[in-house]
Amino acid sequence: MRTIDSIETTTQLCGIIGNPVAHSMSPALHNRAFDLLNLDYVYLAFRVAPGNVRAALDGMRALENFRGLSVTIPHKREVIDCVDVISEVDRAIGSINTIINDNGNLYGLGSDGPGARQALLDNGINSEDQTVTILGSGGASRAIAFDLVANATPAVLKLCGIVEDELHELAHDIAAMTTIPVEAVSMNESALKQAIYASQVLINTTPVGMHPNAAQSPVPATLLHEDLDVMDIVYNPLETRLLKDAAAKGLRTVSGLEMFVNQAVIQFESWTGKTAPKTVMRDVVLAKLTSGQRS
Amino acid sequence: MRTIDSIETTTQLCGIIGNPVAHSMSPALHNRAFDLLNLDYVYLAFRVAPGNVRAALDGMRALENFRGLSVTIPHKREVIDCVDVISEVDRAIGSINTIINDNGNLYGLGSDGPGARQALLDNGINSEDQTVTILGSGGASRAIAFDLVANATPAVLKLCGIVEDELHELAHDIAAMTTIPVEAVSMNESALKQAIYASQVLINTTPVGMHPNAAQSPVPATLLHEDLDVMDIVYNPLETRLLKDAAAKGLRTVSGLEMFVNQAVIQFESWTGKTAPKTVMRDVVLAKLTSGQRS
Repeated sequence: MRTIDSIETTTQLCGIIGNPVAHSMSPALHNRAFDLLNLDYVYLAFRVAPGNVRAALDGMRALENFRGLSVTIPHKREVIDCVDVISEVDRAIGSINTIINDNGNLYGLGSDGPGARQALLDNGINSEDQTVTILGSGGASRAIAFDLVANATPAVLKLCGIVEDELHELAHDIAAMTTIPVEAVSMNESALKQAIYASQVLINTTPVGMHPNAAQSPVPATLLHEDLDVMDIVYNPLETRLLKDAAAKGLRTVSGLEMFVNQAVIQFESWTGKTAPKTVMRDVVLAKLTSGQRS
Repeated sequence: MRTIDSIETTTQLCGIIGNPVAHSMSPALHNRAFDLLNLDYVYLAFRVAPGNVRAALDGMRALENFRGLSVTIPHKREVIDCVDVISEVDRAIGSINTIINDNGNLYGLGSDGPGARQALLDNGINSEDQTVTILGSGGASRAIAFDLVANATPAVLKLCGIVEDELHELAHDIAAMTTIPVEAVSMNESALKQAIYASQVLINTTPVGMHPNAAQSPVPATLLHEDLDVMDIVYNPLETRLLKDAAAKGLRTVSGLEMFVNQAVIQFESWTGKTAPKTVMRDVVLAKLTSGQRS
């Protein structure tokens, strides 16, 4: 194990910006991985107030050895205008959570969508030729939906939401990028029932079921059928009501932990160029979540 | 000893900016001290290119948990215009080497002058009522000379230099701030002889005698008299020709190591509010210097 006094002039900095960041699991996660692989990096948390995002990123550009950033709420959108290079898909999504400083050029990317897709794959769930229903139309839904149509080939993508304007904008934006059928579905019980009935994969991106409302589920248990795989991006609690209901029916489930770990793996690998120790990283997050450190 | 994976969301960042910074001893020094006192800080080195100083400092202001900076060549002057609060003396000196980020307010201060004065005091040399000769008229000379007249009370201050304009500007600037007699002395052998003859303290701030010109001394050995204490701010080699000549005559000598350690102590205490472990910090620098890591 490397000690603090081994930090030298060559050590590179990564970190997270957001507001708040006090309960972020990312420092523990990435420092453990750096340490395990004996990589010459440290990872810190920086609260950044509204209005200071550009200054933070310009500072990163100026401070050589400042290699990478994770970006969390509420700065995921604003950082897009502060980086130098970004993919077409990430620009269409409208938010990113990862920055790589390559000699003063800032590359931005979103790892939430690819992280969710990898979490499904890690659990044997492939969205190719499947009908996928995503609940919610916010930032996480955008990231996951755009990534799915860009990098997998679902047969049909159904988007269910309660914020009508946001929902239709999302469906419209995705339809402009793909020939895969994309449907906007209002989240009433009848429409939801039809969408889920037609689906093989269900992904919840809404906060319904998150602590302290752990008794709630975005979907009545009666709608969960035997051909459905279910992912929830909520990781607090680790097993949400939705996942409990699905497991009780014998369905395959994927928790928010898996997406969180996989988005972090992508970040780690983009900064270091090394294969991330995913199992150890997952253990760190699991320990945090089950110890209740994050509540 | 704290390990890298103990770095968490609360950990504060300090660092050094300069160009180059690859051979800086400051990361080893401060991280060892943080570790020893179990303080929740890490210290990194950031090369900052010309023209990027303001961006670096604005970034520091935006990144909460970014607590402190050391500033080295060539940025010590430019940072003055980028901080929010600075003392009258430091503004008159025209350079600073320490920044403290207090909730987005940047306080600047120079620790070189106070560090040199403390190095003398640590070795039993008090400049009160003494005639002090300083060799050189550059940034280090300015910092030491201003600090001496502001915080000690030498009887007379003699400044010897070869850059006439710079020398007279320095003497003029100091004379405007003090009633202590300040004399500009051209560095020819006759004038130097008179100045040193009248002095009880001699401080070399020129690079004469620095590696790879370790055989050189700014002062002929014959001018060193028995009532003289001699400090050299050069620390590479640790014992310069000037200090060897002085030691051979039985004079008290103070090496650049002592000033380097003391300026770092002032920085450490300004960031952490804790008493710095000076002896351990000195050992770190001594080990670096004697291992030839810095050459």
